[in-house]
Amino acid sequence: MLNNTVKNITEVDVHKREEATKRVDTLIKPLKSLGRLEELYIQLASITGTLHPKVDKKVVLVMAGDHGVFSEGVTAFPQSITALQTELFTKGVTGVCALARQARAEVVVADVGVAADINYPLIRNYKIAYGTGNIRREAAMTRQQAVAALEVGIRLANEQIDQGKNLLGTGEMGIANTTPSSAIVSLFTGKDPEEVTGVGANLPTAKLSHKALVIKEAIQRHKPNKNDGVDVLAKIGGFEIGAMAGVMLAGAARKVPVVVDGFISTSAALIAHAIEPKVLPYLIPAHLSMEQGAKAAAEFLGFKPLLELGLCLGEGSGAALSFNIIEAATFMNEDMMTFEEAGMKI
Amino acid sequence: MLNNTVKNITEVDVHKREEATKRVDTLIKPLKSLGRLEELYIQLASITGTLHPKVDKKVVLVMAGDHGVFSEGVTAFPQSITALQTELFTKGVTGVCALARQARAEVVVADVGVAADINYPLIRNYKIAYGTGNIRREAAMTRQQAVAALEVGIRLANEQIDQGKNLLGTGEMGIANTTPSSAIVSLFTGKDPEEVTGVGANLPTAKLSHKALVIKEAIQRHKPNKNDGVDVLAKIGGFEIGAMAGVMLAGAARKVPVVVDGFISTSAALIAHAIEPKVLPYLIPAHLSMEQGAKAAAEFLGFKPLLELGLCLGEGSGAALSFNIIEAATFMNEDMMTFEEAGMKI
Repeated sequence: MLNNTVKNITEVDVHKREEATKRVDTLIKPLKSLGRLEELYIQLASITGTLHPKVDKKVVLVMAGDHGVFSEGVTAFPQSITALQTELFTKGVTGVCALARQARAEVVVADVGVAADINYPLIRNYKIAYGTGNIRREAAMTRQQAVAALEVGIRLANEQIDQGKNLLGTGEMGIANTTPSSAIVSLFTGKDPEEVTGVGANLPTAKLSHKALVIKEAIQRHKPNKNDGVDVLAKIGGFEIGAMAGVMLAGAARKVPVVVDGFISTSAALIAHAIEPKVLPYLIPAHLSMEQGAKAAAEFLGFKPLLELGLCLGEGSGAALSFNIIEAATFMNEDMMTFEEAGMKI
Repeated sequence: MLNNTVKNITEVDVHKREEATKRVDTLIKPLKSLGRLEELYIQLASITGTLHPKVDKKVVLVMAGDHGVFSEGVTAFPQSITALQTELFTKGVTGVCALARQARAEVVVADVGVAADINYPLIRNYKIAYGTGNIRREAAMTRQQAVAALEVGIRLANEQIDQGKNLLGTGEMGIANTTPSSAIVSLFTGKDPEEVTGVGANLPTAKLSHKALVIKEAIQRHKPNKNDGVDVLAKIGGFEIGAMAGVMLAGAARKVPVVVDGFISTSAALIAHAIEPKVLPYLIPAHLSMEQGAKAAAEFLGFKPLLELGLCLGEGSGAALSFNIIEAATFMNEDMMTFEEAGMKI
C-alpha cells in the first residue's frame, strides 16, 4: 500500500498553476493585493487541477501514540495523559475540537500506539504497539512497524477522501513526542540537537540540555539513513509521526491538500519528504510553532507558515485554525467579480 | 454626539482581565500553549466584562469617500473607481464581501463622501461632500465636517450594536486614500513622509517621491495639532477615515470590540487614539498591511497585528479574515474542558 501510494504521487499541475495565476489577476482588486490568499488559491488549483478548487469538507486526523523515551525524563507530564486526552478528543472538549468546530471541520481520532488499552467506539483502533521503544537505548520500532504506521495514515486519509473530504489536516497526541521530533529535525537539518530541542509542553528549562543529550545519543546510536525516510521513522520516530506522514503521502497521491500543523507535524513532513520529495507542493504549513526547532524545520522544507500566533499545543489545533484562511482563498476566487464582468477597464 | 460618545469611554475591566487570565490557565492544555488566542480571549473578557464573551454576530462597516488630493497624481487608478466599487460592495462581489461571507459576517456600506451621486438603496447615504479638499492646497474639510464624519461612524456602529452585533470591523474605499493616511501616520509617528509613504494600489515607484512631497507640503501648510484628533482629521484626513475613527470610538463607548483592518484603518485608529487614548484596548489589529508605513503606525499604537499575509487591499478584507481567529478564541473558551472537569491533576 505504501509503495503504491508513493508511486501515485506526481508533480502538481503546472499548467493549472499558470492559468490560476492569470485568473487571480483578473479579479477586481489591485494586482497581488490579496497576497498569501492569492498564493493559496494558485496552490490549490495546481494540486487539484481545477480553477475552482473547494475546501468545504475538512477534517483533522489526530493520531495518538506513546514514546518509550518518556522514561528518560524528557517531559513534564505523566504518560497517562496520552490515553486520557485521546479519549477527550472524542468528547469535543480539547483545543483541536474547539477550533475545528469553529472552522466547521470534523475531527477523526486514531490510536496508533498509545501505551494503554483504549476502548472508545469513536477512537479508531490501529494500535501497532503499546508505545515505541526508548530511542536512547533501542530503535523506536521495526521497519515493518514503520511501514504499518505510515499505512495507518494512508488508510485513514483515503477513507476520508472517499467520503468526500477535500482538505485534510494533521494532528497528534503523544506525551514526549517533541523528543523524536527534535531528533528528526536535527538529523535532516544537520543542526545540533541543542539548537532544535525545546521545552515541548513546558519542560523546565533546566532539563533542556538533558533532553538534547538524549536526542544526540539516539542519533549517534542508530545512525538513521537520511535518504531513507522509513529508516529514520523506524529508528528515531513515533507511530503517530509515521501515521501523519502517511496522511501527507496519501493526500498527495489523491491530489488533496494536506495542512501540516506545528512542530511534530512538520517532523512528519520531513519523513514524508524523505520518502517522496514530490509530496511537498501538496502540503500547506499552518503555523509557525513556538517550539524551538520549528523554524529550522520549516526553513529546511521551504515552508512559509500561514499563521504565527505563538501556538504550541499540537493536536492539529493550528491546522484547524488555518482552515479558515485556506477556505477564504477559495471564497475570494468564487465570489469576486473580474474586471471584465464589472465593466471596469484598468 | 461625539462628545457624549467620548465621555462614555472608560477603562477596560481590569478585574475581568485577571479572572480571564486565571480561567484560561485552567483549560486542558499546556500553559500558554494557545498563545495569541489566549490573549484575545482575555482582551475580549476585559472589553465586554464577561468571562464568556461572544463574537458570533459580526459586521464590517465599509466607509467610502473621495479625496481632492487625487488631482495631484498620487494614485494609479481613476477616481471613478470609488463610486463603482462602492456599488459593487452591495452586490457581494468584492474582496471584503467574499471574505466576510466566509467568516459569516455582514457588510454594511456607507457613502460618507464619494465624488459622485450614488443611488443604491443598499448604500447608506451619509454623504458629507463630494470628496475632500486637496490637502496640498487646502484643508481636507472643515472642523464641522470632521465632527460629522466621526458621527457617521458613531451612528452606524451604534445602530449595528443595537441590532445585536458583537464584533465590528472597519473597512474603507477611497481612491487616493493612502495619501491622507500616510500624512496622518507621518504626523503622529514623527517619521519623515518618505519613510511612511508607499505605493498604495500599485502606484509606479517612480512617482513615490512625488507622493511623499505632496504629503510633506500638506503637513507643512496646515500644521495639524497632534493633540487634537479632530484638527488632524479636518486638515489632512478623509471622510471615510473619520467615519472609521467614529466606529472605533463608539465600539469602545459601548464595550464592543472593533477590529482594525490595514493601513488606512490604522490611520483612523491614530485619529481615534488622539481624540481619546482609552479607545486603544478596545481595538484588535487584524493584520500587518504590506503598505509602507503600516509597521510604523502599528508600532506607534503598540499594535500586534494577528495576521501577516501580505495583504494590502483594504475594504476591511483583512478585518473579515481575522474575524475567524477572534471567534476561535471564544470557541477555545466555551468548548474546552478544564483540568478539574476532566479529572486531571497536573
